[in-house]
Amino acid sequence: MAAPFSTTVADVIAAIGGECRGDAALPLVEIAPIETAGVQAISFVANLRYQSKLDDSAAGCVIVSEALAAKAQQRGTCIVTPDPYAYFARLTQWWKRSAQSLDPQQGVPTGSRIHPTAVIDSDAWVAEDATVGPFTWVGPGAVVSSQVVLRGHVCVEAGAHVGAHTIIHSHVTVGNDCVVGQRCIVHAGVVIGADGFGFAPHEGTWLKIEQLGTVRIGDDVEIGANTCIDRGALGDTVISDGVKLDNLIQVGHNVYIGPHSAMAGCVGIAGSARIGARCTVGGGAVVLGHLSLADDVHISAATVVTRSINKPGHYTGVFPIDENAQWEKNAVALKQLGKLRERLRRLESDNKASDA
Amino acid sequence: MAAPFSTTVADVIAAIGGECRGDAALPLVEIAPIETAGVQAISFVANLRYQSKLDDSAAGCVIVSEALAAKAQQRGTCIVTPDPYAYFARLTQWWKRSAQSLDPQQGVPTGSRIHPTAVIDSDAWVAEDATVGPFTWVGPGAVVSSQVVLRGHVCVEAGAHVGAHTIIHSHVTVGNDCVVGQRCIVHAGVVIGADGFGFAPHEGTWLKIEQLGTVRIGDDVEIGANTCIDRGALGDTVISDGVKLDNLIQVGHNVYIGPHSAMAGCVGIAGSARIGARCTVGGGAVVLGHLSLADDVHISAATVVTRSINKPGHYTGVFPIDENAQWEKNAVALKQLGKLRERLRRLESDNKASDA
Amino acid sequence: MAAPFSTTVADVIAAIGGECRGDAALPLVEIAPIETAGVQAISFVANLRYQSKLDDSAAGCVIVSEALAAKAQQRGTCIVTPDPYAYFARLTQWWKRSAQSLDPQQGVPTGSRIHPTAVIDSDAWVAEDATVGPFTWVGPGAVVSSQVVLRGHVCVEAGAHVGAHTIIHSHVTVGNDCVVGQRCIVHAGVVIGADGFGFAPHEGTWLKIEQLGTVRIGDDVEIGANTCIDRGALGDTVISDGVKLDNLIQVGHNVYIGPHSAMAGCVGIAGSARIGARCTVGGGAVVLGHLSLADDVHISAATVVTRSINKPGHYTGVFPIDENAQWEKNAVALKQLGKLRERLRRLESDNKASDA
Repeated sequence: MAAPFSTTVADVIAAIGGECRGDAALPLVEIAPIETAGVQAISFVANLRYQSKLDDSAAGCVIVSEALAAKAQQRGTCIVTPDPYAYFARLTQWWKRSAQSLDPQQGVPTGSRIHPTAVIDSDAWVAEDATVGPFTWVGPGAVVSSQVVLRGHVCVEAGAHVGAHTIIHSHVTVGNDCVVGQRCIVHAGVVIGADGFGFAPHEGTWLKIEQLGTVRIGDDVEIGANTCIDRGALGDTVISDGVKLDNLIQVGHNVYIGPHSAMAGCVGIAGSARIGARCTVGGGAVVLGHLSLADDVHISAATVVTRSINKPGHYTGVFPIDENAQWEKNAVALKQLGKLRERLRRLESDNKASDA
Repeated sequence: MAAPFSTTVADVIAAIGGECRGDAALPLVEIAPIETAGVQAISFVANLRYQSKLDDSAAGCVIVSEALAAKAQQRGTCIVTPDPYAYFARLTQWWKRSAQSLDPQQGVPTGSRIHPTAVIDSDAWVAEDATVGPFTWVGPGAVVSSQVVLRGHVCVEAGAHVGAHTIIHSHVTVGNDCVVGQRCIVHAGVVIGADGFGFAPHEGTWLKIEQLGTVRIGDDVEIGANTCIDRGALGDTVISDGVKLDNLIQVGHNVYIGPHSAMAGCVGIAGSARIGARCTVGGGAVVLGHLSLADDVHISAATVVTRSINKPGHYTGVFPIDENAQWEKNAVALKQLGKLRERLRRLESDNKASDA
Repeated sequence: MAAPFSTTVADVIAAIGGECRGDAALPLVEIAPIETAGVQAISFVANLRYQSKLDDSAAGCVIVSEALAAKAQQRGTCIVTPDPYAYFARLTQWWKRSAQSLDPQQGVPTGSRIHPTAVIDSDAWVAEDATVGPFTWVGPGAVVSSQVVLRGHVCVEAGAHVGAHTIIHSHVTVGNDCVVGQRCIVHAGVVIGADGFGFAPHEGTWLKIEQLGTVRIGDDVEIGANTCIDRGALGDTVISDGVKLDNLIQVGHNVYIGPHSAMAGCVGIAGSARIGARCTVGGGAVVLGHLSLADDVHISAATVVTRSINKPGHYTGVFPIDENAQWEKNAVALKQLGKLRERLRRLESDNKASDA
C-alpha cells in the first residue's frame, strides 16, 4: 500500500479482539509472513505443523492459538486467539480500511460520487450514496443500490440489479436483467450474462438458441478477474450466497453453484452442471455438462469430472508429471494398456492350467 | 426476460410453422424445459429416448416429431414438426424478438442511434442505420456496416471492418485492419487481433516478431465472452463462416478454423493449427501448434491433441477421475508402466521357455 | 497491413545488416513464409532441416545462414547472416515501423497526444510526450512516463506507475499502486492487480483476506490479451525483466517469474509459485501453488506440475489422445492399474516358486 500506516498491538486488539501476551505498546508497520517478518511486523502461525518457524522469526508480534502461546511468548509479544487464521483475515480487513482512511486516493476517484463522465439512463435508479466511476454506463431500468461502488468503464445493462455494498471493478459487464447480490466483489473484466452456448444442429450449420434466462448471484459472492458467467437458456444460472470464484473461470448456462463453494482459477463448469454446497474445485479443473456434485465434494486441480459424484470426498484424475523421456515410455505403454491387461489374464490362466 | 410476453399456440405456428394437434388457442407465457414446464408453457422433446418425460410433464404444449405425436396428444396440445430441436431454436429466436418489441430497453440505449458520448473518427465510415453505444470509439478508416450494433465501450480500431447486421457487445476490441463478417455476434470482452505470440530466442532473451497479419472472420460467426483471436504473424488468422466459439477460448496466430466448426469454453488452439469443417472441440481441450484436424473430427473435453488427425471420428485423452486415494495408487503404478510392460514380457518369454 | 509498403533488398540490409548475394535492387512488397512467398517477397530458412523448401520456393529473396548460402544463391537472391531467425524478427520490427510511418492511422488516434475524452486526475503525472487514448482514465498519484502509449478505455488506477516506452492496449486495468516497467507491451483486456484469491475458512463460510501487496512488472515484458496477474496478499507478485506471457494466463498472488521465462496461452500459475529464469511453460499447463521450478525448466503443454522441480530439463504429463473407443478400454484398465501391478507381482513370485 502506498499510504504509510502504523499502529500498535493494543490498537489491533481493540479493533479485533484477542488477548495480548507481552508488549501491547509495540509499534506495528506491516503484516508479513512469518519467514520474513521484522521487528515492527505482525505475523501469524495457524498450523501447529509450522510451529518451528516461530523460533526463527524476527516478527515483533505473532498471532497464535493457546497451544502455541507459551512457545510464542518465549520469543516476544503474541496475540492469543482460538482461530489465528481467521484473526489474520480480519486483521487484513481492518488494516486495509485503516490505511485507506489515511489515503482517500486508494478508493474510487475523489470528488462527486457520480463521476461527471458517467452516463446514467434517466430510467435507471442509482442510490444517493452509491459511487459511479468514470465512463461507467447504467442502463434503463437498472438498479444500483445503497453504498455500491461502480469503478471505471462498468456497463450495468438494462434492467440489471446491483445489491447494496457491492463493489464492481473496471470493465465489468452486468448483462440485461442480471442480478448481483449484496456485499459482492466483482473484479475487473468479469462478464455476467453473456449468452450461453446453445445451438441446434441443422443441415450442417448451427441454429442459435436464444438464451432467455438471466444470471442470479447471491450475497457475499466474490468473482475473479475476466471470469464469465453465462445467462440461462430457459431459466437462470444461479450462484448462491458466499460462493468464491477465482480468475478466468467459465460458468456455463443454467449452472447452479451451491452456497460457499469455492473454485480456483481457469476452472470450466459446463452448462446445466449442478455443484453442491461447500465444494471446492482446484485450478484448471473441468466439470462436464448436466452432471451434479454432492455437497462437500473436493475436486483436485486440473481434474476432469466426467460423471456425477454423489458422495462427499476428494476426487482426482491427473496424469503424473515426469521427465519427458520417461513420460514418453509410459505414454506408449498406456496406449496398449487394455492389451497388456489381456496378456496378463492369459498368463494367469496359463499358470492355473499348468498348476492343474 | 423482464418484459412480460404472452402468445398462443396459433401465433407460434403462424410465425414458425408446424402442425397443431389440440387447442390452438392455448395461451403461452414461457418456454420451459419439459421437466418444469407448467400449463401455460411450451416445451419440446427432441429425442425419442426422453419420451417418458412426456407423461410426467404439465407443459401446456409440447413440440414433437410425428413419432411422438400420438403419445404427446394423449396428454394435451402439441405441435408436430420434422425437427423439434431446430423448431425450438427458431421459437427462442422469435420469442426474443417478440418480447423485445414490447420492451425497447432490452436492446441498446434508446434515443439517437449514435450515443452522444461515442467517438467516431472523421475518417471512419458508419452506416446511417448502425447503432453505436456509449463510450464506443471507431477509429480512422474503420467501416461499420448497415444495421450493425456496437454496444458500450467497444473499440473498432483503425482500418477494421464490421459487416452488416453484426452485434458487438461491451468492451470488445476489434484490432487494426481486422475484418468481422455479416450477422456475427461478438460477446463482451472479446479481443480480436492482439499480437500473436511470436519471439525469436536470442542470447538468452526474446526478440519480438512483429505480427503483420490480421484476423478475418466470416459470416454468421458467434464468439463467446473474453475469447481471444490473435492476428497472424505473416498472413491472417481465419475463422470461417458459421463457426461458433464459446467463452474464454484462445485462438493463436495463423490458425484456420473451417466452416461450421464449434468449440466449447476454455479451449486453446495454438498457432498455425488448421481445424477442418464441422469439427467440434470439447471444453478445455488443447490443440498444439502446426497440427491439422480433418473435417468432421470431434475432440472430447479436456483432451490434448498432440498429433494431426487425418480421419473423421471421435478422439479422447483424459485421465479418468477417481477417489483421490485410489487415483494415487494408480498414478504411482502409471509412472512405472513401461517397466511393468517389461516385466510382463519377461514372464511371457519365461512361460514359453518352460513350455518348450 | 492496410498501408502498402515496398522496399528493396539493399534497403533491408542498410537497416538491419547482413550480406547480399545476388540482386540488391530487388523490389520487396511483403514478408512471407517460404512455402507461399512470391517473387517480390522476402522469406527465411532458419533450420537446416527445412533446406529442401528452398528449392520449391518462389521467394524473391531468402534470409539464410552461411551453411545454406550456396544452395540459396542457386535459386536467386539471398541475405546471409549468422542467425536468420533473429534477422527475421528484426526485419518484422523494421517493416512494421516503416509501414506505419506511411500510415499514421495505424497507431493511436491522431491529433493531440491526449485525447479530449481522456480523464487525467489533477494529481496524476503524465509525461508531455506520452499518448493517452479515448476514454482512458489516469487516477490520482499515477505516473505515466515518457513515450508511453495508453490506447482506448485504459484504467491506470491510483498510485500505479507505467514505465517509459510501454504500450498499453484497450480495456487494460493497471490496479492501484502496481508498477509496469519500461518497453513493455500489455495487450487488450489484461487485468494487473486484481485481488489474489485468499480466504480463511470460518464456520462453513469464507473470510476475505485482503490483498495488501501489489504487482511489480519488470522491463521488456509482454503480456497477452485478457491475461490476469493478481496482486500479492502480503508482499508483491513479481514478473521479472524480459518475461513473455501469452493470452488468457492466470498468475496468482505472490507468484515470482524469473527473467526471460515464457508461457503460452491458458497457463495457470497458482499462488506463491516460484518460476525460475528462462523457463518455458506450454499452453494450458498448470503449476500448483507454493511450488518452485528451477531455472531452465521446460514444461510441456497441458502438463500439471504437482511437485517442485529442482533440475533443468523437459517435463511432461499428458494423457495420450486416442480414438475414443480405444481410449475407453485403456481408461478402464488404468483405473485398475494398481491391481494389475499386484497381479503381475503374484505371477512373478509364483513363477519363481515353481522354478525353485
